[in-house]
Amino acid sequence: MKKESLYLKIAKVMEEQIATETLKLGDKLPSIRMVQKLYNVSINTAKQAYLELESKSLIEPRSKSGYFVSKASMRKFSLPSVGKMKKSNQEKEPVDLISKVFNTLNDKEITQFSLGVPANSMLPIAKLNKGVISAIRRMEDGGTAYEPVEGSTNLRRTLAKWSFVLEGKLSEHDIITTSGAMNAIFNCLMAVTKPGDTVAVESPVYFGIHQIIKSLGLKAIEIPTHPVTGIDLEAVKKVLPRLNACCFISNFSNPLGCLMPDEHKKELVRMLTEYDIPLIEDDLYGNLFFGTERPKPCKYYDEAGIVMWCGSVSKTLAPGYRVGWVAPGKYKEKIIRQKLVQTISTPSMYQEVIADFMEHGGYDHHLRTLRSKLYTNCLKYQGAIEAYFPYNTKISQPQGGFMLWLELDKKIDTAELFDQAIKQKISFAPGRMFTQYHQYNNCMRLNFALDWNDKLESDIKRLGRLVKAIL
Amino acid sequence: MKKESLYLKIAKVMEEQIATETLKLGDKLPSIRMVQKLYNVSINTAKQAYLELESKSLIEPRSKSGYFVSKASMRKFSLPSVGKMKKSNQEKEPVDLISKVFNTLNDKEITQFSLGVPANSMLPIAKLNKGVISAIRRMEDGGTAYEPVEGSTNLRRTLAKWSFVLEGKLSEHDIITTSGAMNAIFNCLMAVTKPGDTVAVESPVYFGIHQIIKSLGLKAIEIPTHPVTGIDLEAVKKVLPRLNACCFISNFSNPLGCLMPDEHKKELVRMLTEYDIPLIEDDLYGNLFFGTERPKPCKYYDEAGIVMWCGSVSKTLAPGYRVGWVAPGKYKEKIIRQKLVQTISTPSMYQEVIADFMEHGGYDHHLRTLRSKLYTNCLKYQGAIEAYFPYNTKISQPQGGFMLWLELDKKIDTAELFDQAIKQKISFAPGRMFTQYHQYNNCMRLNFALDWNDKLESDIKRLGRLVKAIL
Repeated sequence: MKKESLYLKIAKVMEEQIATETLKLGDKLPSIRMVQKLYNVSINTAKQAYLELESKSLIEPRSKSGYFVSKASMRKFSLPSVGKMKKSNQEKEPVDLISKVFNTLNDKEITQFSLGVPANSMLPIAKLNKGVISAIRRMEDGGTAYEPVEGSTNLRRTLAKWSFVLEGKLSEHDIITTSGAMNAIFNCLMAVTKPGDTVAVESPVYFGIHQIIKSLGLKAIEIPTHPVTGIDLEAVKKVLPRLNACCFISNFSNPLGCLMPDEHKKELVRMLTEYDIPLIEDDLYGNLFFGTERPKPCKYYDEAGIVMWCGSVSKTLAPGYRVGWVAPGKYKEKIIRQKLVQTISTPSMYQEVIADFMEHGGYDHHLRTLRSKLYTNCLKYQGAIEAYFPYNTKISQPQGGFMLWLELDKKIDTAELFDQAIKQKISFAPGRMFTQYHQYNNCMRLNFALDWNDKLESDIKRLGRLVKAIL
Repeated sequence: MKKESLYLKIAKVMEEQIATETLKLGDKLPSIRMVQKLYNVSINTAKQAYLELESKSLIEPRSKSGYFVSKASMRKFSLPSVGKMKKSNQEKEPVDLISKVFNTLNDKEITQFSLGVPANSMLPIAKLNKGVISAIRRMEDGGTAYEPVEGSTNLRRTLAKWSFVLEGKLSEHDIITTSGAMNAIFNCLMAVTKPGDTVAVESPVYFGIHQIIKSLGLKAIEIPTHPVTGIDLEAVKKVLPRLNACCFISNFSNPLGCLMPDEHKKELVRMLTEYDIPLIEDDLYGNLFFGTERPKPCKYYDEAGIVMWCGSVSKTLAPGYRVGWVAPGKYKEKIIRQKLVQTISTPSMYQEVIADFMEHGGYDHHLRTLRSKLYTNCLKYQGAIEAYFPYNTKISQPQGGFMLWLELDKKIDTAELFDQAIKQKISFAPGRMFTQYHQYNNCMRLNFALDWNDKLESDIKRLGRLVKAIL
């Protein structure tokens, strides 16, 4: 604990130096070694201090040349506000709104800021298609036979190897494949809850999670979530005794893009372990980090097997493949039974394609390119929004993923704005979709995994103009 | 009604002629036209009389040469008995037994009479593999993108066209694709029931259906089921007011292989419509008929939209593809929402492969071959069982599909027999798996979609010897 507070102290000092512009935009920070000497601490503590600053978007690493004060630290627009704890039962369903937005997704003339996945142009489609052809030639039965309930052995083995971030804590026997991460979450909630149970979620939260919760007859508690550091642990603590499960996106949550600091993850797992509450951790954006290294999942801190670590390739490679997985800890047998009951098995072929793509380095190479594109796009979007949106617009500082969250003037109802925007062939996700309560009515989520070009910039401009026209 | 009783009367006369050996094994029956003249009835009534006899396995059609008294009519072994209505709550779970049987499925040295799908050698794997390669070349995005929630438009359109048996009652808009028929049933039950609700099922019933019911917190009523004509309608009628849904395999039920007569289907739909009770109809064996034409599903008689007609290619083409579908009638919106919540969409590619295979006649051609193989195998199995099993063995008369149901002497516990058989590298499905009550302990299900050869015959012989050794 002492070591942790030490790195936080160092981070605090530097944060103040940035706030007071002692350290200015673009300034190079002292090297890690220099910090080590300056503060007489270990290399690790120095690194952690910088990670802390990085997780707040105050500094950014540049490959091989150290850390610099980031552009984000100088933003004109402030961060969106944190929601209040919501746990009453007076649900108001945003279902119609969700359907409305979904119905626009197949219109190719519409700029799809509402999309939940990267644009096709960002995905290695030709390589994957080659992978399909080679897989079908390699597979003895072409995938016509049932595979084992647990899923493709190749994929599970590759995932275990490839999960460097867990430092070898997983073997193929700890992983079950699923039909995408949504299906992993569905299975997890089916496995560890019964109707009437209560589940803690982020707020704002990906609407798919709310829909699962509702369809299973569960209750959701929306936990206040900070746009940079994620869920408020104090708030979780208050409702702990009432919880039957938690379901959080720990790394680059959708829609906020926030990243739980390591110590929060550790503390969350500790608290939940004490109460034996399962944590369904949806880590589907974890590989899309803008920082120096892939953030650890909560699973890393899990000794008791309470964390059900879910992932997929839907946000990075091929949404339509429906390849996902879960490392369900001590709930493994329940998940296997649940998958068997629900669908017997998952189709093998796409799993083989993904396993091969990972095994031979294709995935890693693709992720490096994708991350760099996404980070660049994020900065361009933020710049365009600062240029074209009203001054009181608040904007998130995602540290990974590809979602931006905007909080507009209280007067703006983004559900109404959506109707206007769609007439101009622009679609976005209104904030009201991301809660079951009446809040976030003046917010919106924008996907920045679209190709940046003049057309896109002008669409952001037109969207900003629509907002300004209302004020 | 008058017309119906007329054909039954004619059938009755002929049934007696067969029983008294006025008509002997192999005798040719009068032609349909002859019956028409003899009894002064319509062609249709004459046909129905023959279908009735055929559905009782008393006669069989031979292509282009009319009807003959079937071998089955002369069986030494009688039909298995009909179970009693079971609806108490004292469930005894056969889960461990099911796991035990499942765990033997990957051992290639074991003769898999317990398999739930046809042997690989009966499936057109090479053709399907070619289909995959051509689909991946045809699809613009190679299936990387989400498809619409409803599923592949190509497949839905082809299914609608291909469902001749429904005489054009379905369009592509009436069909949602799913991850196999099990997943269709899961979705249907999720859509139309809530925990605590009661569902009527056959008895014996495919264990997967029981597992879904249990996992959703539902109660099952096991309806007595006749080995030839299927569920007892009187029994259904008695419990109607207590039912929230029915889930039946109307054509060639697993494990009995029984076929509900058309008038039963019609009456069932009428009763359920009156009470507005949804019928989940699992019609996954319907194309594997041994008679002259594909039997109609209950869906054919459904005017009110209460029948949710489920199907798949898992029993005929490629279990591992996980391609299934449902025509959910008036529950369509609920099913769409359910599918969206559970997994967003299904992978496109295999759906495209299947659509193409159907569209270009490959499926039809394959089915013709498969049906003929299965019917031959059925006769060979029945012959071998009559030769090698004790005289008091009872045996089902499947009219399609590929499952045989045996009822052995009361002294035989097939769960214990399984342990002995597995030592001899023979696996079958013990009867106890097909009920949640203590019954069918002396029954077993055998898959006859395995290649017939000397080895297989000797395995049936060894199995019979094991049974005899206990008596």
